[in-house]
Amino acid sequence: MTTTPRTRLSPEQRREQLLDLGVRLLAHRSLDELSIDLLAEEAGISRGLLYHYFGSKQAFHEAVVRHAADDLIAQTTPPTGGEPMERLLTSVTAYVDYVIDNHEGYVSLVKAAAGGNESLRAIYEDARSALNGRIFREDTAGQILTDTPLARLVVRGWSAMTEELVLAWIDDPADISRDDLISIVVASLPAVVEAIPAG
Amino acid sequence: MTTTPRTRLSPEQRREQLLDLGVRLLAHRSLDELSIDLLAEEAGISRGLLYHYFGSKQAFHEAVVRHAADDLIAQTTPPTGGEPMERLLTSVTAYVDYVIDNHEGYVSLVKAAAGGNESLRAIYEDARSALNGRIFREDTAGQILTDTPLARLVVRGWSAMTEELVLAWIDDPADISRDDLISIVVASLPAVVEAIPAG
Repeated sequence: MTTTPRTRLSPEQRREQLLDLGVRLLAHRSLDELSIDLLAEEAGISRGLLYHYFGSKQAFHEAVVRHAADDLIAQTTPPTGGEPMERLLTSVTAYVDYVIDNHEGYVSLVKAAAGGNESLRAIYEDARSALNGRIFREDTAGQILTDTPLARLVVRGWSAMTEELVLAWIDDPADISRDDLISIVVASLPAVVEAIPAG
Repeated sequence: MTTTPRTRLSPEQRREQLLDLGVRLLAHRSLDELSIDLLAEEAGISRGLLYHYFGSKQAFHEAVVRHAADDLIAQTTPPTGGEPMERLLTSVTAYVDYVIDNHEGYVSLVKAAAGGNESLRAIYEDARSALNGRIFREDTAGQILTDTPLARLVVRGWSAMTEELVLAWIDDPADISRDDLISIVVASLPAVVEAIPAG
């Protein structure tokens, strides 16, 4: 009796694979449109098995959104070396492209988080904190910005401005180029940091 | 037979009075908590009469929110004279105080508008446009900022940053004074305008 070696995914790997698919489906769909039925169809497995993996539609949405947030954080990781403004440019460019490529899903997450879905809001806030926290992280070039409550608040404001700028621009680009959009976002961080009153 | 002259409100005046009361009640309550029952009780009139004035709970909420938005726009009107930055300071100070004084209602409106209540979103966007549009309005001191799509986008971003800064500060002031908060908001407008790439 011979057995052909075959790749057998562990339940954890299978779950990851389903989450990857969920994130891809979410890119051009709202959360409301991302149903267990759709994922079952796309993955070619039964609804029952999906409920086995995720428990409920809400838990499935949470898992997909958390996976999408991890992707966003990974894709926008700035290079470890280089000038701070160059690193910021790389990271902001990746963020803008992420929001362009995943517009439907991103907007529906912002909507769900802002509209009062508390668990999605928590995931959204965690991702934002992770993105904003980078501004304060020590790196080979040293700390970029002194970590004070005022600086934290300003970076949070800049982050909200960035999201608004990108989403409003996607809705109505009005002849503004992607490069100009990115320039404004990048240049406005040191600009608002300069606006912090001296302690 | 003598009749004592008495003040009799027109239906329109009565409706205005009820909206004023609704706006006052909304200051320290969410929209969900602002029911027709509560307004009826506070105004000392029947629910039936309120339905006569407003038609439905949704229409009542829309009318109250529109009234509140008009109040916000009126209270934050900058003085017609003076230096642009002084006028901005006056207007931003009034905005910050408005959000502090009407925190519950304001947050619930942002939530409803962001979460997908389309008619409340339209009222919210109209109010924002009115506030942002002032930045571009000609006045005795001349136009403050040249009206281009890029400048409109940046002012919109600044406005989103302002809202985030004020709401985050109210949630957790972290030893930051109201004056420092206002300084940052005011100083960041010219700062982000400077970030606009030269055409």
